Amino acid sequence: LSKNYQKLNPYYVCGFVDGEGSFNINIGKHNTTKCRYEVRMAFEIELRADNREILERIRTTLECGGLYFLDYKRYGWNPHYKYRVQKQSDIDRKIIPFFKKYPLQGCKAKSFEIFAEAFNVIKRKEHLTLVGVDKLKEYQHQMRLIGKKRKTFR
Amino acid sequence: LSKNYQKLNPYYVCGFVDGEGSFNINIGKHNTTKCRYEVRMAFEIELRADNREILERIRTTLECGGLYFLDYKRYGWNPHYKYRVQKQSDIDRKIIPFFKKYPLQGCKAKSFEIFAEAFNVIKRKEHLTLVGVDKLKEYQHQMRLIGKKRKTFR
Repeated sequence: LSKNYQKLNPYYVCGFVDGEGSFNINIGKHNTTKCRYEVRMAFEIELRADNREILERIRTTLECGGLYFLDYKRYGWNPHYKYRVQKQSDIDRKIIPFFKKYPLQGCKAKSFEIFAEAFNVIKRKEHLTLVGVDKLKEYQHQMRLIGKKRKTFR
Repeated sequence: LSKNYQKLNPYYVCGFVDGEGSFNINIGKHNTTKCRYEVRMAFEIELRADNREILERIRTTLECGGLYFLDYKRYGWNPHYKYRVQKQSDIDRKIIPFFKKYPLQGCKAKSFEIFAEAFNVIKRKEHLTLVGVDKLKEYQHQMRLIGKKRKTFR
């Protein structure tokens, strides 16, 4: 028996994601792909487990993605839920169009822009070549810099 | 020369606050008030300094509050900005009405509800008595429990 979750106002989702969402490019080693790399793009929001309902409602609003329980017991942390969209067609037809229609307003707007650029590389199948993988590594690097640009102390 | 910041969609603010905002009741010792306590209510959002603009735009949208720079140099952390509304009349006429009109959707809705209840105690001047302060301490305790209710591991 699955519960029906109520959709959220799209601007609400946009504000929530500006604070809590993340756009990720994951580049892993892979033994069977031709260029030995595997690229995965993902849109994710991770929250403490007591916020599960809001993630369900975001999933209902964006009409894609899944929820994953993260136990964290061995770290002594609170359990979390992660909302994740990783399916290429969902990123293409749902996530990217949504945030083009309802643009992010904070620093995360820049992350999204790079994410969308990187996604074009994948759509053109360039990620199957080493040149393409290098391009994606550069995007990944740029995204990491956004989170660090004021880290002047240490 | 002060920059003009563009207002945000109110639902955006609501979504952002559901993730990043906090409603606080601060009860401090005070030597000159009759009941020896001083109560301050505050609505706050603290972000890394590179997100300053979004806080300025939230301030413009909510038409109240101030921004404070938090250096954190001695901790070796990134600098932050805190947006804070502490003026009683602003909480009464701006913050509480705003979040009644655009209700929070996550766990934070419960925090806001308690915050608004606690504010009524102050409006009725009950916080000037020890009975009133005890009531506020109970609200403060309830708010803390919300953040901890699933903390079953340790």
